Amino acid sequence: MNKIEHIGIAVKNLDEANQLYTKLFGKPSYKTEFVESEGVKTSFFKVGNNKIEFLEAITEESPIVKFIEKKGEGIHHIAFEVTDINAEIKRLKAEGFQVLSETPKKGADNKLVVFLHPKNTNGVLIELCQEII
Amino acid sequence: MNKIEHIGIAVKNLDEANQLYTKLFGKPSYKTEFVESEGVKTSFFKVGNNKIEFLEAITEESPIVKFIEKKGEGIHHIAFEVTDINAEIKRLKAEGFQVLSETPKKGADNKLVVFLHPKNTNGVLIELCQEII
Repeated sequence: MNKIEHIGIAVKNLDEANQLYTKLFGKPSYKTEFVESEGVKTSFFKVGNNKIEFLEAITEESPIVKFIEKKGEGIHHIAFEVTDINAEIKRLKAEGFQVLSETPKKGADNKLVVFLHPKNTNGVLIELCQEII
Repeated sequence: MNKIEHIGIAVKNLDEANQLYTKLFGKPSYKTEFVESEGVKTSFFKVGNNKIEFLEAITEESPIVKFIEKKGEGIHHIAFEVTDINAEIKRLKAEGFQVLSETPKKGADNKLVVFLHPKNTNGVLIELCQEII
C-alpha cells in the first residue's frame, strides 16, 4: 500500500455534487470520465496529493444504485495505490481477505483495480489500484 | 483545504480492527488515543502521507454508537487539513455549508476540529482540522 490514491463518494447527481464540492474545495473538478464496466460516470477533484472521485450511476445495475438504496449518498470506497496488484491480491488472500474478482479489471483513471469484500474489512469497501503503464 | 489529513473508520472492536488492518497495511498502528469529548478510543495508521483513524465508542452517548446502529461499521468521516480553521468556517458558512459547532473543539491528535453537517455534503461527514501549535 503506497498511498491513498483516492476516496470514492456515491452521489445521485454528479453535476450538483460538482457544483457543491467546487465551493468546498475552492476549485473545480479537473476531469469527468465514464466507466462503462461499473455503470458510472465519475468526476475527480485533487486535494493535496490525493484525489476525490464522485460516482453517479448511469445504469440500473450499477453497484452505486444498490449502495445508495441501502446506505444513502456518502463515502463509498477508499482506493490504495499498490505497485504490483497481482502480488497484493496473492498476499491478501493468504492473509484471509476476500477479493471481489480473481483478476484485476480496468477501472477509471487508467488503472487496474480490484476490490476487497467489505465483510472482512469492518464494512469498508477497499479498492487496490495500479497505474497502467 | 491543504490535504486529506485522515479518514475515520467506525468499528465495534478497536483491537480486532488493529489486528486486521495491521495485516492489510503490512505494519502496525503507531498510536492509540482516548478522546473523552467524543466518547471514543482511536488508533492511527500511516499510509503514505495520510492517516487512517479507527474509532470505537467508549460511552453509550458517543456519535459512533449511533453511526454503527444506523449504517453499520465503515467509513465515518474525511478530515481535511486547513491552515486557518476559523477563516474556513467563516468562508464555508458564507457558501451555505452548516457547521456542527460554531467554534472549533479539541479533537484527537492535537488538532482543533469542526465538522460540517452531512445533509449539505451528499451524506459525507467532513471534518476540518488545524494542528495546535
